[in-house]
Amino acid sequence: MNILEIIAKKRDSKELSKEEIEYFVNGYTNGEIADYQAAALIMSIYINGMNDREITDLTIAMAYSGEVLDLSRFGENVVDKHSTGGVGDKVSIILLPLIASMGIPVAKMSGRGLGYTGGTVDKMESIPGYRTNIGIDEFISNVEKVGISMIGQTLNLAPADKKIYALRDTISCVENIPLIASSIMSKKIASGANKIVIDVTVGKGAFMKTKEDAKKLAEQMVRIGDLAGKEVRCILTPMDQPLGYAVGNSLEVVEAINSLKGNIPEDVKKVVLELGANMIQLAGKGNNIEENKAKLLENIKNGKAYQKFVEMVQNQSGDISYLEDTSKFEKSKYNSAIMCEKRGTVKEIDAEEIGKLACFLGAGRVKKEDKIDHIVGILLNKKVGDKVENGDVLAYIYANDEEKLREAEKRIRDIYKIADIPENFEKENNAESVERTKENVPIEESIKTGEWALVTVKKGKFYKIKRFFRRIFG
Amino acid sequence: MNILEIIAKKRDSKELSKEEIEYFVNGYTNGEIADYQAAALIMSIYINGMNDREITDLTIAMAYSGEVLDLSRFGENVVDKHSTGGVGDKVSIILLPLIASMGIPVAKMSGRGLGYTGGTVDKMESIPGYRTNIGIDEFISNVEKVGISMIGQTLNLAPADKKIYALRDTISCVENIPLIASSIMSKKIASGANKIVIDVTVGKGAFMKTKEDAKKLAEQMVRIGDLAGKEVRCILTPMDQPLGYAVGNSLEVVEAINSLKGNIPEDVKKVVLELGANMIQLAGKGNNIEENKAKLLENIKNGKAYQKFVEMVQNQSGDISYLEDTSKFEKSKYNSAIMCEKRGTVKEIDAEEIGKLACFLGAGRVKKEDKIDHIVGILLNKKVGDKVENGDVLAYIYANDEEKLREAEKRIRDIYKIADIPENFEKENNAESVERTKENVPIEESIKTGEWALVTVKKGKFYKIKRFFRRIFG
Repeated sequence: MNILEIIAKKRDSKELSKEEIEYFVNGYTNGEIADYQAAALIMSIYINGMNDREITDLTIAMAYSGEVLDLSRFGENVVDKHSTGGVGDKVSIILLPLIASMGIPVAKMSGRGLGYTGGTVDKMESIPGYRTNIGIDEFISNVEKVGISMIGQTLNLAPADKKIYALRDTISCVENIPLIASSIMSKKIASGANKIVIDVTVGKGAFMKTKEDAKKLAEQMVRIGDLAGKEVRCILTPMDQPLGYAVGNSLEVVEAINSLKGNIPEDVKKVVLELGANMIQLAGKGNNIEENKAKLLENIKNGKAYQKFVEMVQNQSGDISYLEDTSKFEKSKYNSAIMCEKRGTVKEIDAEEIGKLACFLGAGRVKKEDKIDHIVGILLNKKVGDKVENGDVLAYIYANDEEKLREAEKRIRDIYKIADIPENFEKENNAESVERTKENVPIEESIKTGEWALVTVKKGKFYKIKRFFRRIFG
Repeated sequence: MNILEIIAKKRDSKELSKEEIEYFVNGYTNGEIADYQAAALIMSIYINGMNDREITDLTIAMAYSGEVLDLSRFGENVVDKHSTGGVGDKVSIILLPLIASMGIPVAKMSGRGLGYTGGTVDKMESIPGYRTNIGIDEFISNVEKVGISMIGQTLNLAPADKKIYALRDTISCVENIPLIASSIMSKKIASGANKIVIDVTVGKGAFMKTKEDAKKLAEQMVRIGDLAGKEVRCILTPMDQPLGYAVGNSLEVVEAINSLKGNIPEDVKKVVLELGANMIQLAGKGNNIEENKAKLLENIKNGKAYQKFVEMVQNQSGDISYLEDTSKFEKSKYNSAIMCEKRGTVKEIDAEEIGKLACFLGAGRVKKEDKIDHIVGILLNKKVGDKVENGDVLAYIYANDEEKLREAEKRIRDIYKIADIPENFEKENNAESVERTKENVPIEESIKTGEWALVTVKKGKFYKIKRFFRRIFG
């Protein structure tokens, strides 16, 4: 076997064998295959594609290119959760303690943020003292002791994926669904779970800009999981505007803490409950999705989820007084309220633009080596669909640099798109449930305007999980 | 402009602008664009193709990536000759002095051999004292003085092509007609001629294995020439069995000297006259191809061509006593005659296998750095179509290593394919003209059996240059 033959086969749209794929992944990881040869092969894969068997073999070869976590001590069904990334996405910080509070063990390694989407580890590090960089033995013993641990990627998980991902970034081969699916799944397989719920975000602030692509990615991951012996379930969630109100590390942690205390924004709640209900089902702890949601809500209301979070933070040396009194979190030097200058309705708040603005303020990294500022960011006050009056606060900007504050003030005014109020506004937008008013909106349109569109993908099929989507997929 | 956008465009089958192609070629040549990025782009070009405008822009950008020879002092029409390579190809050594003897200036830079095909410079260096590594001023003054100079590539011609060609070799992107055409044409354009005759060899011992591919390559080069303002004419010639009888550096030089003295093998003569007649036409020295051939033959017969060769060799310090008496050329340590063991007809002598065998004996290079042995090689005694008897000599092997000699003896027996004589052999193969007997053979069949098939390609059209090919292309 040699790399020239393997490249030539894929160049000519031929199927690669498991052995050929392993030869490439191992050879590239250990440096025997050069970057330019990997580049030629990856480009051939990008253009000519791979079938499910090939993509699965690629995924498994990448997963086993480094350390693979063994979580089998936690039972037959070990559930993991992943998100393809979004702006204001604090779901893990709320959902995982909530799941742990149901008696389901949670051993979660998260990544850091890069670009305009944040990372859970960065956010958790806003809590003074909280240790994310701990060894694997302590990680496992933490899960055994309090039922949950959330840490950074201390293991060398799927190094082949890291190397291939970095290469793809330099050769315009990022936006390819089979390669994206393979990359995500390789890390998930190396993380040791055998049941995986994946939040596939869709829209302006997500990696997948359209529902079609998100569906394809979801279906590809489910098929890889199937062939690799892992049960994968994907939930498509909208990411046109930021999730919740807070964007920025400590701001999001405070929102997560408030959520665990019961004060959870509607959009965040929907994602948390949807993912959580599916995780419970996969864990074998409840087959009825709606009942699972009710149980989850109950554990927020009765304080058990919050209590589990406190336990976890304390167990990893975090200062829990910050959880009890979130006003203790350090404030940024500057805080500016952005006022609305006309009467109307918020039509659009581009999540990517908000993410980039938070990044600009210091909340995220442009390069891997960048340090982040935990206390800067944006707190939305009005979201899409909200009616606004002249003088209302649209959002607050938290900055540590005056020049950046001024620049951000300008930019956020462009990001908030305010539509004039239609004459029949009062009639159409009365106080009734948002869900009901959106019952007849087609999903494409719905996602386009940042509204709700939850779709579950499992075993390659779409299941209708909301009554008001029946007409679209039924 | 940036390389990621350029890669993404070609990845998505979009057309690249002249500026984008120049950006890539210049950036890659000066090291700003990495090998892996070039690999991704080249693979995209390989798979998704380029139109004629793009390929021409690529060719010109590569041609102008280094020094470009200015031969305009030699008149309006400066003619160059190129071959896509073959086994036993000593055409340049005969043709160029012949052309110079017609008063057409010849300034020829040739390459060295790599792999199983030889290089003209290596062959010329068999002549003791002959200097191929001379500066550009002396080169030009030689042409001015004696009308001809044949040297090695002392200029840094088309360095981008060198770099891209080397990369293609490591990423399975060699066999691609637009890229091959672009590579050849970039070197030809940098060499300074504005009229170019290209011998496109076809068959077992050629880069192009089929007539279809050779036609495509020829047409592509003609179209590039057209767009680049160079008149290109391609002649397709068969390369199933070696050209002439000698394969190996000094052996081929001796055959070339004998040819210039009037003793020229039929197949070599056809190629020499065909290319030469077209070169004369392009140089504006005679419009009638058949008349041109007659003039060329005349200059062989009257000794003018040989005399021009002697002048050139002498002018570049070669020992011309070797030309007068070719028995002075050093002999190899071993010389073995290979006898035929049955009565029959020679059906096949695979040129690539003969080329590899000569290479194995030391006549060629496997790696660029290899030194070659000028005096080893193979002298065929029987060629395809020849009737042979038990005990006839098929070929002679010239070796300097006994073990290699023994191995070569074994291998050459497998290379010579002898067919039993059909019962009506005498009737079918009487002494009449070879050309006439092949009049009705389709060109594909003709090339397949190593017989003659000359086709001229100019300005994107096929011109019938042999009466007996009218039926095929007419």
